[in-house]
Amino acid sequence: MLTAHQRSAALKAGIELGLFAALGDGPATAHELATRATVPERGMRILCDFLTIIGLIVKQDGRYAHTPTSAVFLDPRSPASMAPTMPFLMNEKIMTASRHLTQTIRNGYTALEVPLAGEEVIEWVTFARAMQPMMAAAAEYIADVLLTAGPPQKVLDVAASHGLFGFAIARRAPACEVVALDFPSVLEVTQEHARAAGLKVTSLPGSAFTADLGEGYDAVLVTNLFHHFSMEDNIALMRRFHAALRPGGRMAVLEMIPNEDRISPPDQASFSMMMLTNTPSGDAYSMSEYREMLDAAGFGASELTDVPQSPQRLLVATR
Amino acid sequence: MLTAHQRSAALKAGIELGLFAALGDGPATAHELATRATVPERGMRILCDFLTIIGLIVKQDGRYAHTPTSAVFLDPRSPASMAPTMPFLMNEKIMTASRHLTQTIRNGYTALEVPLAGEEVIEWVTFARAMQPMMAAAAEYIADVLLTAGPPQKVLDVAASHGLFGFAIARRAPACEVVALDFPSVLEVTQEHARAAGLKVTSLPGSAFTADLGEGYDAVLVTNLFHHFSMEDNIALMRRFHAALRPGGRMAVLEMIPNEDRISPPDQASFSMMMLTNTPSGDAYSMSEYREMLDAAGFGASELTDVPQSPQRLLVATR
Repeated sequence: MLTAHQRSAALKAGIELGLFAALGDGPATAHELATRATVPERGMRILCDFLTIIGLIVKQDGRYAHTPTSAVFLDPRSPASMAPTMPFLMNEKIMTASRHLTQTIRNGYTALEVPLAGEEVIEWVTFARAMQPMMAAAAEYIADVLLTAGPPQKVLDVAASHGLFGFAIARRAPACEVVALDFPSVLEVTQEHARAAGLKVTSLPGSAFTADLGEGYDAVLVTNLFHHFSMEDNIALMRRFHAALRPGGRMAVLEMIPNEDRISPPDQASFSMMMLTNTPSGDAYSMSEYREMLDAAGFGASELTDVPQSPQRLLVATR
Repeated sequence: MLTAHQRSAALKAGIELGLFAALGDGPATAHELATRATVPERGMRILCDFLTIIGLIVKQDGRYAHTPTSAVFLDPRSPASMAPTMPFLMNEKIMTASRHLTQTIRNGYTALEVPLAGEEVIEWVTFARAMQPMMAAAAEYIADVLLTAGPPQKVLDVAASHGLFGFAIARRAPACEVVALDFPSVLEVTQEHARAAGLKVTSLPGSAFTADLGEGYDAVLVTNLFHHFSMEDNIALMRRFHAALRPGGRMAVLEMIPNEDRISPPDQASFSMMMLTNTPSGDAYSMSEYREMLDAAGFGASELTDVPQSPQRLLVATR
């Protein structure tokens, strides 16, 4: 466990050196893979053996090969590849924060001078460019859930980022106005992605805490936002979203929501660690904590479902 | 895997905040553990949940507790605790080198300006103070193996460090002169440990590559040394040790020696990664590579055994 950091480093190196792309062409020796990456053989051999030991690839008769899992999730030619998320998930801030965990616990808040929370930082641009593969399944699911009530006319996509959540709505409801709220530097990426997808979204530059959101929305999409902030801040945000919805309108919250024991399921529950290290007061909130926040913000009924092909959950609350 | 670095960070924080000592007094809530460590509760709760999720401790009815494994290997009151090894295994150099793995592979050697290999660096003092728990079982085993041929008169302990390997001999053969070779800053620790153990060893300050080793040794102990260097350098070292032995004398090599497939057993085989990141040309060499080096250095018969209660192997080669 004291050397677990090597696992992240090895996966990062494999991605950066194009190893998982090279293995997509078939099994290869360390010598062949080193030649392909134009690096000395020793390092490539040790990297490949290490990735084999930790179960990411396999080795047989001196040749390394994809596992069925790495072929789907690490080969860049696979549409489900998660490799593009690495530049965000292992960005300089996250890695620095991880090294200062003891200090963070002593202080009670992130050791980062500029946290990964409500500030306009370059990492949110990286996020918008990198995290699409991890969000695609959820975006389709949320659109399916919201569209069962018929096509919406106006939807607010809060912290729109890569834009996928709004795009999934716009694709199914071409007459709907999708308003994308995010920092100006991030909205450049959102609009770039919208153009590439042949879709139109309205830019609303600013912070979710202070921007003029407008009103009368059929739905407000709040995806991966609340975990960055304290419950108090989240109640303030929810009140703003509540006011922006038409009566009967719905707030769709995509989140890591652990069970009340806070240790299961592992992916949701361990996400708290990411929020401890990188934000001043964020957390992976449990459903009882979400109920408390929703009540305080004036929301009525709410429904929680698991998102297929994702470790996340969808919470839909009605004004 | 991209967040595996959090596991090392969490274990480090648990050790530094005295969590595993506190759990030694019995199950406790996050509030109680935070009070004990004088830190805010949020960070302690998230840390404890995370350590539970990764299997290091358990949680029941809101109270955290040791597992049988953490009680033995992480509670500082346990004589088998591995927690003292953390300051070496997660030292600044090792953590920095891990972050630069891609560059290391591109260059073909460590990205560290001053590597963790044959130089006199402060980390070898840390090693001497920290790594005893991981070496105790092997030290007793090596002494047992060497003493079956009767008590030796003169033994050279190369890279003596904490001193445990020489001490195990000295304890069983009180008339034997144990010569401890290491850098001067490290020998201060060796002698401090010898005094504490009520044993006498002779200091031989210097590098294994250049020091005047003397001659006529019944045994030369070479523990965790060869993995830092190239095969060529190791052959040069072995020749020096060969010359220092009396005819029939034995070189006892404690090492991480993976199987020829270089992917098993996992602890030995993955040790190559530590050598790739931190040394210019070290490796976890296989037995066929050791045979090649031993032959080139003029050694005769050699025997390989597993070391009980250790991931390491013992190679005994006779002059």
